Amino acid sequence: MKTLRDIGENGLLRELLPLLPQRSDTPVGPGDDCAVVRLPLSPHDRLFTTDPVIENRHFLPKTPAHLVGRKAIARAVSDIAAMGGEPLWILINLVAPGDTPLTRIRGLYTGMIAAAHQWNLGILGGDTSEGTTLELHITAIGRVPRGLAVLRSGARARHALYVTGALGGACLPGARHHLLFEPRLAAGRFLAEEQFASAMMDISDGLATDLPRLLDASRRGCFLETAAIPLSRAARKTEAPLHHALCDGEDFELLFTVAPSKIERFEAAWQRRFPDLPATRIGTILASPHQRHMRHADGTTTPLLPGGYQHFLPHTPPCPPEP
Amino acid sequence: MKTLRDIGENGLLRELLPLLPQRSDTPVGPGDDCAVVRLPLSPHDRLFTTDPVIENRHFLPKTPAHLVGRKAIARAVSDIAAMGGEPLWILINLVAPGDTPLTRIRGLYTGMIAAAHQWNLGILGGDTSEGTTLELHITAIGRVPRGLAVLRSGARARHALYVTGALGGACLPGARHHLLFEPRLAAGRFLAEEQFASAMMDISDGLATDLPRLLDASRRGCFLETAAIPLSRAARKTEAPLHHALCDGEDFELLFTVAPSKIERFEAAWQRRFPDLPATRIGTILASPHQRHMRHADGTTTPLLPGGYQHFLPHTPPCPPEP
Repeated sequence: MKTLRDIGENGLLRELLPLLPQRSDTPVGPGDDCAVVRLPLSPHDRLFTTDPVIENRHFLPKTPAHLVGRKAIARAVSDIAAMGGEPLWILINLVAPGDTPLTRIRGLYTGMIAAAHQWNLGILGGDTSEGTTLELHITAIGRVPRGLAVLRSGARARHALYVTGALGGACLPGARHHLLFEPRLAAGRFLAEEQFASAMMDISDGLATDLPRLLDASRRGCFLETAAIPLSRAARKTEAPLHHALCDGEDFELLFTVAPSKIERFEAAWQRRFPDLPATRIGTILASPHQRHMRHADGTTTPLLPGGYQHFLPHTPPCPPEP
Repeated sequence: MKTLRDIGENGLLRELLPLLPQRSDTPVGPGDDCAVVRLPLSPHDRLFTTDPVIENRHFLPKTPAHLVGRKAIARAVSDIAAMGGEPLWILINLVAPGDTPLTRIRGLYTGMIAAAHQWNLGILGGDTSEGTTLELHITAIGRVPRGLAVLRSGARARHALYVTGALGGACLPGARHHLLFEPRLAAGRFLAEEQFASAMMDISDGLATDLPRLLDASRRGCFLETAAIPLSRAARKTEAPLHHALCDGEDFELLFTVAPSKIERFEAAWQRRFPDLPATRIGTILASPHQRHMRHADGTTTPLLPGGYQHFLPHTPPCPPEP
C-alpha cells in the first residue's frame, strides 16, 4: 500500500493543488508562500498563510517555550514577508497533552505575545485542544498594495537571482538561527513596493529544495553560482559549508529575482536602504525549465538536484536538534 | 507542578484571553465563535475562526476519511454560522505520520473538496507536515453585513433562549451526527440579518458547557426549562436522554436569544422560513449572572452546573467513538 513516504510533500502537493476549488476573488490560490485575495474597492490585497510548529520536528522538549512561541509566529510572518506584505492578524491553534506543565504553556504564549507586539499583530483568537503532541498552528493574515504581491512565478530568462543574509546551519549544534531569525519584512516590502523583485519566496526548506520550487512555478531553469552563495557562520564552521547552505532548512531568508533592466538601480537602492543586510547575487535564470545547473568555483558544472528538507520523505531529517 | 489538567480549557482561556494584543480594527477579538474585523469602506465585516480535528479525539482510525474531511470543514463553517455570517475561504493544515496510506489522505481531501463545493468555499492553501497523529486544522474566513455579527455577549434579562434542531447523542454508537451534521448557515444568516438574535453561539461542547459560556459573555443568568429541551432520536434511545442532551458534545446546533419585543414576530417569521427546522424555546435569561437554574418537569429546580466536554479536564471524555 502506497504511503505519504512514497511520494513526499512535493508529490502530495502536485496531486492535490489542482483539485482545490477556487473563488473568482482569489488572484493567487494555493502553492505560493501566501494566497492573495482581492476585495472590491480596497487599495490592498489580502494575504493568507498557515504554518505548524510541532514538537520533535520544529523544536525539542528542552527548547525554551518562549522561543518556540516566537518561532511559530515568525515562520508565518516570514511567509507574508516573502510576498512583500505587511502582517496584520494571527490565529493560534494549540494542541497539547493534558499533562503539559502550565509553565510551558505560559512560556509559549509569552513568546507569541512578544512576537505579536514586535510585529504589531492582533491575535484574533484560535482554539485549544488536547492531543498527544505539543503543537502550534499559526494562521497569519496580511496585506499588500493591490497588485504588488510578488509571486514565485514571475522569474524570466536572464533575471538575476539573489538571496538575503547568509544560508545554512540554522539548526546545527550551537546555532539558534531557527529560533531567533528575523523575518525579512522590511526587505520584502521594499522589493515589492519598489517593484524590484519579479519573483520571490522565503527559504524555509533549504535553497536546494526551495529554488526548484521557484523555478517550477516560473517554468524556468537557472545557473546557480555556488561560489557566490553567502555562507552562515554556523555553516562555515563545518567541513561542508556549501552542503549545509544548500540542504539545511530554516534559513528564512528571501530568495528573489530582478530583471536585467533593474539590476543597477536595485543594487544601489538596496545598498542605501539596507546597508547592514547583504543581498547577494547567486545566479541567473535560464529560459528552459530543463536547464538547471550549479557552476562551481573550479569552473565545473553539475546538475542542480533538489536536496533540502521535504516532509514525509524518509531520507531527510527534520530541523535537527540544537544542543 | 500544575498542568493543563488542573485548570482545564476554560481556566486556560480565562488566563490567556486578556493578554492577547488587539488591533483597533477588531471589534470582536478572541472568545467568541469568530473574531470580527472591520475594514474601512467595506459593507461587510470579516469573520475569522480556526478549528482542529484530531485522530482518536474527534474521529477514529476506522472513521471513513471523507467524513473526517467533511467534519473538519463543517466545524469551522458552523462557527461562521454562529455569527450570522457567510463562509468564503478556508486554509488547511494537514499533520500526518509518514506511513499514512495515500488512500486515506486522498479520502480526507475528497471530503474537504466536496464540502468546499457544497458551501461555495475557496481553498486558499495551507501546509502539510509530518507528525505522530493524523490531524486537520481548518481556518475559515467569512463575512457578515457590517455591524450585524451576532455575539455571545448580547443576551439581556427576559430575553428568550432558543435552540435549533435537537440535542444529544451525536457520538453515541450508531449515531453519526458528529460527522454528518449540517452547519446552520441559513438559520444563522436569517437570525443576524433580520436582527432577531441578540446573542448566539453554536453548541459544540454540549449545552451544559456552552450555555454558561454565553451567559458569562453576556454577564447574565438563566432559567433553563429542561422539559422543553428538544431531544435527538439518539438521546431518546438512551436511559438518560436529558443527560445526553445537556452533556454530549458535537451537536452543532445554534443557541440564541431573542428580545421579548421581537418574540412574536420572530416565531412567525421562523415558521415561514424554516418549516422543517424547529427553533425551540428552552428558557429565559435572568439579570444576575449568579442566578443559573434548571427547572424540571416536576416543578423542582436545581442549579445549572457546567457538565459538557472541556478540553484537558480528566473527567470528561472526548466525543466517544461511533461504532
